[in-house]
Amino acid sequence: MKSLFILKIGGKVIEDQALLDEALQAFVQQEGYKILIHGGGKRASELSKQLGIPVQMMNGRRITDAATLEVAVMVYAGLANKNIVASLQALGCNAIGLSGADANAILAHKREVKDIDYGFAGDVDAVNVNTIQTLLEGSLTPVFCAITHDGQGQLLNTNADTIAMQLATAMAPYYLVSLHFCFEKPGVLLNADDHNSVIPILHYNDYQDYQADGTIYEGMLPKLDNAFTALQKGVKEVRIGDVRAILEQKGTTLQY
Amino acid sequence: MKSLFILKIGGKVIEDQALLDEALQAFVQQEGYKILIHGGGKRASELSKQLGIPVQMMNGRRITDAATLEVAVMVYAGLANKNIVASLQALGCNAIGLSGADANAILAHKREVKDIDYGFAGDVDAVNVNTIQTLLEGSLTPVFCAITHDGQGQLLNTNADTIAMQLATAMAPYYLVSLHFCFEKPGVLLNADDHNSVIPILHYNDYQDYQADGTIYEGMLPKLDNAFTALQKGVKEVRIGDVRAILEQKGTTLQY
Repeated sequence: MKSLFILKIGGKVIEDQALLDEALQAFVQQEGYKILIHGGGKRASELSKQLGIPVQMMNGRRITDAATLEVAVMVYAGLANKNIVASLQALGCNAIGLSGADANAILAHKREVKDIDYGFAGDVDAVNVNTIQTLLEGSLTPVFCAITHDGQGQLLNTNADTIAMQLATAMAPYYLVSLHFCFEKPGVLLNADDHNSVIPILHYNDYQDYQADGTIYEGMLPKLDNAFTALQKGVKEVRIGDVRAILEQKGTTLQY
Repeated sequence: MKSLFILKIGGKVIEDQALLDEALQAFVQQEGYKILIHGGGKRASELSKQLGIPVQMMNGRRITDAATLEVAVMVYAGLANKNIVASLQALGCNAIGLSGADANAILAHKREVKDIDYGFAGDVDAVNVNTIQTLLEGSLTPVFCAITHDGQGQLLNTNADTIAMQLATAMAPYYLVSLHFCFEKPGVLLNADDHNSVIPILHYNDYQDYQADGTIYEGMLPKLDNAFTALQKGVKEVRIGDVRAILEQKGTTLQY
Protein backbone atom coordinates (compact mmCIF):
# COMPACT_ATOMS: atom_id res chain seq x y z
CA MET A 1 0.00 0.00 0.00
CA LYS A 2 1.27 3.43 -0.92
CA SER A 3 1.32 6.32 1.52
CA LEU A 4 -0.95 9.34 1.23
CA PHE A 5 -0.16 12.50 3.19
CA ILE A 6 -3.20 14.69 3.81
CA LEU A 7 -2.71 18.16 5.24
CA LYS A 8 -5.47 20.51 6.34
CA ILE A 9 -4.40 24.10 6.92
CA GLY A 10 -6.67 26.29 9.00
CA GLY A 11 -8.00 29.80 8.58
CA LYS A 12 -5.41 31.53 10.75
CA VAL A 13 -2.57 29.92 8.75
CA ILE A 14 -4.14 31.18 5.50
CA GLU A 15 -4.43 34.71 6.87
CA ASP A 16 -0.71 35.05 7.64
CA GLN A 17 1.35 34.99 4.42
CA ALA A 18 4.58 33.96 6.22
CA LEU A 19 2.82 31.09 8.03
CA LEU A 20 1.10 30.03 4.80
CA ASP A 21 4.40 29.99 2.89
CA GLU A 22 5.96 27.89 5.65
CA ALA A 23 3.03 25.46 5.57
CA LEU A 24 3.16 25.13 1.77
CA GLN A 25 6.92 24.53 1.87
CA ALA A 26 6.42 21.82 4.51
CA PHE A 27 3.70 20.28 2.34
CA VAL A 28 5.85 20.26 -0.80
CA GLN A 29 8.68 18.51 1.09
CA GLN A 30 6.48 15.45 1.69
CA GLU A 31 7.27 12.73 -0.80
CA GLY A 32 4.68 10.62 -2.56
CA TYR A 33 0.97 11.17 -2.89
CA LYS A 34 -0.49 14.13 -1.09
CA ILE A 35 -3.67 16.18 -0.77
CA LEU A 36 -4.11 19.65 0.71
CA ILE A 37 -7.35 21.00 2.23
CA HIS A 38 -7.63 24.63 3.23
CA GLY A 39 -10.02 26.79 5.20
CA GLY A 40 -10.86 30.33 4.19
CA GLY A 41 -9.77 32.57 7.00
CA LYS A 42 -11.49 35.76 8.00
CA ARG A 43 -11.36 37.18 4.48
CA ALA A 44 -14.86 35.86 3.76
CA SER A 45 -16.26 37.64 6.84
CA GLU A 46 -14.39 40.80 5.87
CA LEU A 47 -15.77 40.69 2.34
CA SER A 48 -19.31 40.06 3.65
CA LYS A 49 -18.93 43.07 5.90
CA GLN A 50 -17.67 45.24 3.01
CA LEU A 51 -20.67 44.16 0.93
CA GLY A 52 -23.10 44.81 3.78
CA ILE A 53 -24.07 41.13 4.13
CA PRO A 54 -24.88 40.44 7.80
CA VAL A 55 -22.98 37.55 9.41
CA GLN A 56 -25.58 35.33 11.08
CA MET A 57 -24.42 32.86 13.72
CA MET A 58 -26.48 30.18 15.49
CA ASN A 59 -24.98 27.92 18.17
CA GLY A 60 -21.51 29.01 17.07
CA ARG A 61 -22.17 28.03 13.45
CA ARG A 62 -22.56 30.39 10.57
CA ILE A 63 -25.85 30.53 8.68
CA THR A 64 -25.07 30.38 4.98
CA ASP A 65 -27.69 32.38 3.10
CA ALA A 66 -27.44 32.83 -0.68
CA ALA A 67 -25.32 35.99 -0.47
CA THR A 68 -22.98 34.43 2.13
CA LEU A 69 -22.57 31.34 -0.06
CA GLU A 70 -21.52 33.54 -3.01
CA VAL A 71 -18.90 35.20 -0.84
CA ALA A 72 -17.65 31.80 0.39
CA VAL A 73 -17.38 30.50 -3.19
CA MET A 74 -15.52 33.64 -4.27
CA VAL A 75 -13.06 33.62 -1.37
CA TYR A 76 -12.54 29.88 -0.78
CA ALA A 77 -12.79 28.45 -4.33
CA GLY A 78 -11.48 31.60 -6.01
CA LEU A 79 -9.04 33.79 -4.12
CA ALA A 80 -7.66 31.36 -1.51
CA ASN A 81 -7.62 28.24 -3.67
CA LYS A 82 -6.04 29.77 -6.77
CA ASN A 83 -3.37 31.67 -4.83
CA ILE A 84 -2.42 28.48 -2.97
CA VAL A 85 -2.29 26.54 -6.25
CA ALA A 86 -0.13 29.22 -7.91
CA SER A 87 2.22 29.22 -4.87
CA LEU A 88 2.52 25.43 -4.94
CA GLN A 89 3.24 25.52 -8.69
CA ALA A 90 6.04 28.02 -7.97
CA LEU A 91 7.44 25.50 -5.45
CA GLY A 92 7.45 22.79 -8.13
CA CYS A 93 4.33 20.97 -6.93
CA ASN A 94 1.83 20.19 -9.71
CA ALA A 95 -1.24 21.31 -7.75
CA ILE A 96 -4.80 21.27 -9.05
CA GLY A 97 -7.44 23.24 -7.16
CA LEU A 98 -10.81 21.62 -6.59
CA SER A 99 -14.16 22.23 -5.03
CA GLY A 100 -16.38 19.23 -4.40
CA ALA A 101 -18.23 20.06 -7.64
CA ASP A 102 -15.08 19.68 -9.75
CA ALA A 103 -14.88 16.17 -11.16
CA ASN A 104 -17.83 15.46 -8.83
CA ALA A 105 -15.18 14.91 -6.15
CA ILE A 106 -17.34 15.46 -3.04
CA LEU A 107 -21.11 15.09 -3.01
CA ALA A 108 -23.09 16.62 -0.16
CA HIS A 109 -26.68 17.49 0.68
CA LYS A 110 -28.09 20.67 2.14
CA ARG A 111 -28.30 20.19 5.89
CA GLU A 112 -31.81 19.18 6.89
CA VAL A 113 -33.84 21.90 8.57
CA LYS A 114 -34.80 20.82 12.09
CA ASP A 115 -34.81 23.58 14.71
CA ILE A 116 -32.40 25.71 12.71
CA ASP A 117 -32.09 26.36 8.98
CA TYR A 118 -28.34 26.58 8.36
CA GLY A 119 -29.00 27.61 4.76
CA PHE A 120 -26.56 26.36 2.13
CA ALA A 121 -24.49 24.27 4.54
CA GLY A 122 -23.55 20.89 3.08
CA ASP A 123 -23.15 17.59 4.90
CA VAL A 124 -20.94 15.18 2.94
CA ASP A 125 -22.52 12.05 1.41
CA ALA A 126 -19.74 10.66 -0.78
CA VAL A 127 -16.16 11.13 -1.89
CA ASN A 128 -15.37 10.12 -5.47
CA VAL A 129 -12.28 8.01 -4.75
CA ASN A 130 -11.74 6.94 -8.39
CA THR A 131 -11.46 10.50 -9.63
CA ILE A 132 -9.05 11.48 -6.89
CA GLN A 133 -6.95 8.40 -7.66
CA THR A 134 -6.91 9.36 -11.36
CA LEU A 135 -5.51 12.76 -10.44
CA LEU A 136 -2.94 11.34 -7.97
CA GLU A 137 -1.80 8.71 -10.52
CA GLY A 138 -1.55 11.51 -13.08
CA SER A 139 1.09 13.15 -10.82
CA LEU A 140 -1.30 15.88 -9.75
CA THR A 141 -1.74 17.13 -6.19
CA PRO A 142 -5.37 17.95 -5.33
CA VAL A 143 -5.95 21.13 -3.32
CA PHE A 144 -9.47 21.22 -1.89
CA CYS A 145 -11.38 24.23 -0.66
CA ALA A 146 -14.38 23.83 1.64
CA ILE A 147 -17.07 24.06 -1.06
CA THR A 148 -19.09 20.99 -2.09
CA HIS A 149 -22.16 20.43 -4.30
CA ASP A 150 -25.37 18.42 -4.26
CA GLY A 151 -25.16 17.06 -7.79
CA GLN A 152 -28.27 19.06 -8.73
CA GLY A 153 -26.42 22.29 -9.48
CA GLN A 154 -26.30 23.70 -5.96
CA LEU A 155 -22.96 24.61 -4.38
CA LEU A 156 -22.75 24.15 -0.60
CA ASN A 157 -20.52 25.41 2.20
CA THR A 158 -18.88 22.60 4.19
CA ASN A 159 -16.54 22.69 7.18
CA ALA A 160 -12.93 22.20 6.05
CA ASP A 161 -12.04 19.88 8.97
CA THR A 162 -14.96 17.67 7.97
CA ILE A 163 -13.81 17.59 4.35
CA ALA A 164 -10.32 16.58 5.51
CA MET A 165 -11.78 13.76 7.62
CA GLN A 166 -14.09 12.58 4.84
CA LEU A 167 -11.29 12.57 2.26
CA ALA A 168 -8.93 10.75 4.62
CA THR A 169 -11.44 8.04 5.54
CA ALA A 170 -12.55 7.56 1.92
CA MET A 171 -8.94 7.05 0.80
CA ALA A 172 -7.99 4.83 3.80
CA PRO A 173 -8.93 1.50 2.17
CA TYR A 174 -6.50 2.20 -0.71
CA TYR A 175 -3.59 4.07 0.89
CA LEU A 176 -1.75 4.31 4.21
CA VAL A 177 -3.24 7.67 5.07
CA SER A 178 -1.71 10.11 7.53
CA LEU A 179 -3.91 13.11 8.29
CA HIS A 180 -2.45 16.33 9.65
CA PHE A 181 -4.42 19.27 10.98
CA CYS A 182 -2.19 22.33 10.84
CA PHE A 183 -3.35 25.36 12.82
CA GLU A 184 -1.83 28.24 14.78
CA LYS A 185 -1.16 26.30 17.99
CA PRO A 186 1.66 23.78 18.64
CA GLY A 187 -0.85 21.02 19.43
CA VAL A 188 -3.81 20.18 21.63
CA LEU A 189 -3.13 22.08 24.88
CA LEU A 190 -3.86 21.09 28.47
CA ASN A 191 -4.05 24.80 29.19
CA ALA A 192 -5.28 26.89 26.25
CA ASP A 193 -3.11 29.84 27.38
CA ASP A 194 0.13 27.85 27.71
CA HIS A 195 1.80 26.78 24.45
CA ASN A 196 4.15 24.58 26.48
CA SER A 197 1.26 22.39 27.62
CA VAL A 198 0.97 20.31 24.42
CA ILE A 199 -0.49 16.83 24.95
CA PRO A 200 1.95 14.66 22.92
CA ILE A 201 -0.36 11.65 22.69
CA LEU A 202 -4.09 12.02 23.18
CA HIS A 203 -5.95 8.77 23.83
CA TYR A 204 -9.65 8.69 23.09
CA ASN A 205 -10.50 7.83 26.71
CA ASP A 206 -8.51 10.78 27.97
CA TYR A 207 -10.17 13.01 25.35
CA GLN A 208 -13.54 12.04 26.79
CA ASP A 209 -12.32 12.91 30.30
CA TYR A 210 -10.84 16.24 29.17
CA GLN A 211 -14.09 17.01 27.43
CA ALA A 212 -16.11 16.17 30.54
CA ASP A 213 -13.97 18.28 32.87
CA GLY A 214 -13.75 21.22 30.44
CA THR A 215 -9.97 21.00 29.79
CA ILE A 216 -10.69 20.77 26.05
CA TYR A 217 -13.57 22.90 24.86
CA GLU A 218 -15.27 24.96 22.18
CA GLY A 219 -13.59 25.03 18.76
CA MET A 220 -11.30 22.09 19.52
CA LEU A 221 -14.22 19.71 20.02
CA PRO A 222 -15.54 19.45 16.43
CA LYS A 223 -11.91 19.33 15.19
CA LEU A 224 -11.05 16.45 17.56
CA ASP A 225 -14.33 14.66 16.89
CA ASN A 226 -13.48 14.74 13.19
CA ALA A 227 -9.92 13.63 13.91
CA PHE A 228 -10.95 10.65 16.08
CA THR A 229 -13.59 9.63 13.52
CA ALA A 230 -10.84 9.47 10.89
CA LEU A 231 -8.70 7.28 13.15
CA GLN A 232 -11.64 5.02 13.91
CA LYS A 233 -12.38 4.63 10.20
CA GLY A 234 -8.96 3.37 9.19
CA VAL A 235 -6.74 6.42 8.86
CA LYS A 236 -3.31 5.29 10.04
CA GLU A 237 -2.10 8.43 11.78
CA VAL A 238 -3.72 11.69 12.87
CA ARG A 239 -1.60 14.59 14.08
CA ILE A 240 -2.57 18.10 15.17
CA GLY A 241 -0.25 21.08 15.59
CA ASP A 242 1.44 24.07 14.00
CA VAL A 243 3.63 23.89 10.88
CA ARG A 244 6.76 23.08 12.88
CA ALA A 245 4.98 20.34 14.80
CA ILE A 246 3.73 18.75 11.56
CA LEU A 247 7.20 18.95 9.97
CA GLU A 248 9.06 17.57 13.00
CA GLN A 249 6.41 14.97 13.82
CA LYS A 250 5.65 16.70 17.09
CA GLY A 251 2.34 18.27 18.12
CA THR A 252 -0.43 15.99 19.30
CA THR A 253 -0.84 12.45 17.96
CA LEU A 254 -4.22 10.86 18.48
CA GLN A 255 -4.68 7.27 19.60
CA TYR A 256 -7.74 5.13 19.97
CA MET B 1 -7.78 11.59 -35.05
CA LYS B 2 -10.49 12.16 -32.48
CA SER B 3 -12.68 15.26 -32.46
CA LEU B 4 -12.46 17.98 -29.82
CA PHE B 5 -15.28 20.49 -29.46
CA ILE B 6 -14.19 23.76 -27.82
CA LEU B 7 -16.83 26.28 -26.81
CA LYS B 8 -16.14 29.76 -25.51
CA ILE B 9 -19.11 31.50 -23.89
CA GLY B 10 -18.97 35.25 -23.53
CA GLY B 11 -19.73 37.62 -20.69
CA LYS B 12 -23.27 38.51 -21.79
CA VAL B 13 -24.22 34.82 -21.97
CA ILE B 14 -22.91 34.29 -18.42
CA GLU B 15 -24.94 37.24 -17.13
CA ASP B 16 -28.28 35.85 -18.32
CA GLN B 17 -29.18 32.64 -16.44
CA ALA B 18 -31.62 31.46 -19.16
CA LEU B 19 -29.02 32.02 -21.93
CA LEU B 20 -26.34 30.34 -19.82
CA ASP B 21 -28.52 27.28 -19.16
CA GLU B 22 -29.24 27.03 -22.89
CA ALA B 23 -25.53 27.27 -23.72
CA LEU B 24 -24.59 24.61 -21.15
CA GLN B 25 -27.32 22.27 -22.45
CA ALA B 26 -26.01 22.75 -25.99
CA PHE B 27 -22.49 22.04 -24.77
CA VAL B 28 -23.50 18.85 -22.94
CA GLN B 29 -25.22 17.53 -26.09
CA GLN B 30 -21.92 17.47 -27.97
CA GLU B 31 -20.48 13.99 -28.04
CA GLY B 32 -16.83 13.16 -27.51
CA TYR B 33 -14.08 15.30 -26.05
CA LYS B 34 -14.95 18.85 -25.19
CA ILE B 35 -13.60 21.92 -23.39
CA LEU B 36 -15.50 24.99 -22.20
CA ILE B 37 -13.99 28.46 -21.72
CA HIS B 38 -15.98 31.22 -20.10
CA GLY B 39 -15.70 34.96 -19.63
CA GLY B 40 -16.75 36.70 -16.46
CA GLY B 41 -19.50 39.11 -17.35
CA LYS B 42 -20.11 42.42 -15.69
CA ARG B 43 -20.21 40.88 -12.20
CA ALA B 44 -16.50 41.64 -11.72
CA SER B 45 -17.04 45.32 -12.56
CA GLU B 46 -20.07 45.40 -10.26
CA LEU B 47 -18.11 43.87 -7.40
CA SER B 48 -15.21 46.29 -7.98
CA LYS B 49 -17.69 49.16 -7.81
CA GLN B 50 -19.26 47.82 -4.58
CA LEU B 51 -15.78 47.57 -3.06
CA GLY B 52 -14.81 51.04 -4.21
CA ILE B 53 -12.09 49.83 -6.58
CA PRO B 54 -11.89 52.22 -9.54
CA VAL B 55 -12.19 50.63 -13.00
CA GLN B 56 -9.25 51.92 -15.04
CA MET B 57 -9.41 51.63 -18.83
CA MET B 58 -6.68 52.43 -21.37
CA ASN B 59 -7.26 52.09 -25.15
CA GLY B 60 -10.40 50.06 -24.42
CA ARG B 61 -8.50 47.62 -22.23
CA ARG B 62 -8.84 47.27 -18.51
CA ILE B 63 -5.85 47.96 -16.27
CA THR B 64 -5.56 45.10 -13.78
CA ASP B 65 -4.14 46.44 -10.54
CA ALA B 66 -3.73 44.13 -7.52
CA ALA B 67 -7.23 44.82 -6.15
CA THR B 68 -8.82 44.33 -9.58
CA LEU B 69 -6.96 41.03 -10.02
CA GLU B 70 -8.33 39.79 -6.69
CA VAL B 71 -11.85 40.60 -7.83
CA ALA B 72 -11.26 38.86 -11.18
CA VAL B 73 -9.95 35.74 -9.42
CA MET B 74 -12.93 35.71 -7.04
CA VAL B 75 -15.55 36.18 -9.77
CA TYR B 76 -14.03 34.25 -12.70
CA ALA B 77 -12.24 31.36 -10.92
CA GLY B 78 -14.66 31.27 -7.97
CA LEU B 79 -18.24 32.31 -8.54
CA ALA B 80 -18.61 31.88 -12.33
CA ASN B 81 -16.41 28.79 -12.71
CA LYS B 82 -17.83 26.79 -9.80
CA ASN B 83 -21.46 27.58 -10.64
CA ILE B 84 -20.89 26.51 -14.25
CA VAL B 85 -19.17 23.31 -13.09
CA ALA B 86 -22.02 22.52 -10.66
CA SER B 87 -24.59 23.14 -13.42
CA LEU B 88 -22.71 20.87 -15.86
CA GLN B 89 -22.50 18.16 -13.19
CA ALA B 90 -26.28 18.41 -12.76
CA LEU B 91 -26.59 17.87 -16.54
CA GLY B 92 -24.48 14.70 -16.29
CA CYS B 93 -21.24 16.21 -17.62
CA ASN B 94 -18.19 15.41 -15.48
CA ALA B 95 -16.78 18.93 -15.54
CA ILE B 96 -13.61 20.06 -13.78
CA GLY B 97 -13.01 23.78 -13.35
CA LEU B 98 -9.55 25.13 -14.03
CA SER B 99 -7.55 28.29 -14.03
CA GLY B 100 -4.25 28.28 -15.90
CA ALA B 101 -2.49 27.72 -12.55
CA ASP B 102 -4.34 24.44 -11.95
CA ALA B 103 -2.24 21.53 -13.19
CA ASN B 104 -0.02 24.25 -14.68
CA ALA B 105 -2.44 24.19 -17.61
CA ILE B 106 -1.72 27.65 -19.07
CA LEU B 107 1.50 29.56 -18.47
CA ALA B 108 1.61 33.28 -19.17
CA HIS B 109 3.82 36.27 -18.42
CA LYS B 110 2.86 39.70 -17.15
CA ARG B 111 2.44 41.93 -20.18
CA GLU B 112 5.58 43.96 -20.79
CA VAL B 113 5.35 47.62 -19.83
CA LYS B 114 5.91 49.79 -22.91
CA ASP B 115 3.81 52.96 -23.08
CA ILE B 116 1.16 51.51 -20.80
CA ASP B 117 1.40 49.33 -17.70
CA TYR B 118 -1.59 46.99 -17.94
CA GLY B 119 -0.81 45.61 -14.48
CA PHE B 120 -1.50 41.92 -13.89
CA ALA B 121 -2.56 41.18 -17.46
CA GLY B 122 -1.12 37.91 -18.73
CA ASP B 123 -0.01 37.03 -22.28
CA VAL B 124 -0.03 33.28 -22.87
CA ASP B 125 3.30 31.47 -23.35
CA ALA B 126 2.36 27.80 -23.25
CA VAL B 127 -0.53 25.37 -22.95
CA ASN B 128 0.20 22.13 -21.11
CA VAL B 129 -1.27 19.73 -23.67
CA ASN B 130 -0.29 16.55 -21.78
CA THR B 131 -2.19 17.52 -18.67
CA ILE B 132 -5.30 18.46 -20.62
CA GLN B 133 -5.09 15.14 -22.48
CA THR B 134 -4.83 13.30 -19.14
CA LEU B 135 -8.04 14.97 -18.00
CA LEU B 136 -9.86 14.34 -21.30
CA GLU B 137 -8.76 10.68 -21.36
CA GLY B 138 -9.91 10.42 -17.74
CA SER B 139 -13.45 11.29 -18.96
CA LEU B 140 -13.28 14.77 -17.47
CA THR B 141 -14.44 17.94 -19.21
CA PRO B 142 -12.17 20.93 -18.52
CA VAL B 143 -13.92 24.25 -17.86
CA PHE B 144 -11.47 27.15 -18.06
CA CYS B 145 -11.87 30.61 -16.62
CA ALA B 146 -9.76 33.50 -17.89
CA ILE B 147 -7.12 33.42 -15.15
CA THR B 148 -3.57 32.23 -15.88
CA HIS B 149 -0.31 32.20 -13.90
CA ASP B 150 3.36 32.92 -14.47
CA GLY B 151 4.77 29.82 -12.76
CA GLN B 152 6.36 32.04 -10.10
CA GLY B 153 3.27 32.28 -7.91
CA GLN B 154 1.59 35.21 -9.66
CA LEU B 155 -1.95 34.85 -11.01
CA LEU B 156 -2.74 36.88 -14.14
CA ASN B 157 -5.85 38.11 -15.92
CA THR B 158 -6.07 36.94 -19.55
CA ASN B 159 -8.66 37.59 -22.23
CA ALA B 160 -11.04 34.61 -22.52
CA ASP B 161 -11.13 34.72 -26.36
CA THR B 162 -7.34 34.50 -26.36
CA ILE B 163 -7.41 31.52 -23.99
CA ALA B 164 -9.91 29.78 -26.28
CA MET B 165 -7.67 30.40 -29.29
CA GLN B 166 -4.51 29.27 -27.47
CA LEU B 167 -6.17 26.08 -26.20
CA ALA B 168 -7.61 25.28 -29.64
CA THR B 169 -4.31 25.79 -31.46
CA ALA B 170 -2.32 23.85 -28.83
CA MET B 171 -4.68 20.86 -29.15
CA ALA B 172 -4.91 21.05 -32.99
CA PRO B 173 -1.94 18.71 -33.69
CA TYR B 174 -3.62 15.93 -31.66
CA TYR B 175 -7.36 16.35 -32.32
CA LEU B 176 -9.72 17.56 -35.03
CA VAL B 177 -10.56 20.76 -33.21
CA SER B 178 -13.70 22.80 -33.83
CA LEU B 179 -13.77 26.13 -31.99
CA HIS B 180 -17.03 27.94 -31.28
CA PHE B 181 -17.38 31.45 -29.95
CA CYS B 182 -20.82 31.81 -28.41
CA PHE B 183 -22.00 35.34 -27.68
CA GLU B 184 -25.26 37.29 -27.65
CA LYS B 185 -25.46 37.93 -31.41
CA PRO B 186 -26.47 35.42 -34.12
CA GLY B 187 -23.11 35.79 -35.89
CA VAL B 188 -20.77 38.38 -37.38
CA LEU B 189 -23.08 41.09 -38.72
CA LEU B 190 -22.80 43.24 -41.84
CA ASN B 191 -24.84 45.83 -39.96
CA ALA B 192 -24.33 45.77 -36.20
CA ASP B 193 -27.95 46.89 -35.65
CA ASP B 194 -29.53 44.24 -37.87
CA HIS B 195 -29.55 40.67 -36.52
CA ASN B 196 -30.68 39.47 -39.97
CA SER B 197 -27.41 40.60 -41.55
CA VAL B 198 -25.32 37.60 -40.44
CA ILE B 199 -22.35 36.85 -42.71
CA PRO B 200 -22.65 33.03 -43.13
CA ILE B 201 -19.09 32.53 -44.35
CA LEU B 202 -16.42 35.10 -43.64
CA HIS B 203 -13.27 34.79 -45.76
CA TYR B 204 -10.09 36.31 -44.41
CA ASN B 205 -9.75 38.61 -47.44
CA ASP B 206 -13.27 39.94 -46.95
CA TYR B 207 -12.55 40.38 -43.23
CA GLN B 208 -9.64 42.63 -44.14
CA ASP B 209 -11.88 44.66 -46.46
CA TYR B 210 -14.66 44.92 -43.83
CA GLN B 211 -12.07 46.04 -41.33
CA ALA B 212 -10.70 48.68 -43.72
CA ASP B 213 -14.13 50.13 -44.58
CA GLY B 214 -15.36 50.04 -40.95
CA THR B 215 -18.13 47.43 -41.46
CA ILE B 216 -16.56 45.31 -38.71
CA TYR B 217 -15.17 47.30 -35.80
CA GLU B 218 -14.35 47.65 -32.13
CA GLY B 219 -14.95 44.58 -29.95
CA MET B 220 -15.34 42.21 -32.91
CA LEU B 221 -11.79 42.86 -34.14
CA PRO B 222 -9.78 41.16 -31.36
CA LYS B 223 -12.33 38.31 -31.33
CA LEU B 224 -12.00 37.77 -35.09
CA ASP B 225 -8.22 38.19 -35.00
CA ASN B 226 -8.11 35.41 -32.40
CA ALA B 227 -10.52 33.31 -34.45
CA PHE B 228 -8.55 33.64 -37.71
CA THR B 229 -5.28 32.92 -35.87
CA ALA B 230 -6.80 29.64 -34.64
CA LEU B 231 -7.84 28.71 -38.19
CA GLN B 232 -4.39 29.60 -39.52
CA LYS B 233 -2.73 27.43 -36.87
CA GLY B 234 -4.54 24.19 -37.69
CA VAL B 235 -7.95 24.43 -36.02
CA LYS B 236 -10.34 22.69 -38.40
CA GLU B 237 -13.44 24.82 -37.96
CA VAL B 238 -14.18 28.17 -36.33
CA ARG B 239 -17.76 29.33 -35.85
CA ILE B 240 -19.17 32.46 -34.21
CA GLY B 241 -22.78 33.08 -33.15
CA ASP B 242 -25.42 32.74 -30.46
CA VAL B 243 -26.36 29.46 -28.77
CA ARG B 244 -28.88 28.55 -31.48
CA ALA B 245 -26.38 29.27 -34.24
CA ILE B 246 -23.77 27.05 -32.56
CA LEU B 247 -26.28 24.21 -32.08
CA GLU B 248 -27.72 24.39 -35.60
CA GLN B 249 -24.35 24.96 -37.23
CA LYS B 250 -25.42 28.39 -38.38
CA GLY B 251 -23.89 31.71 -37.38
CA THR B 252 -20.66 32.76 -39.10
CA THR B 253 -18.08 30.24 -40.26
CA LEU B 254 -14.59 31.57 -40.86
CA GLN B 255 -12.50 30.59 -43.87
CA TYR B 256 -8.96 31.33 -44.79
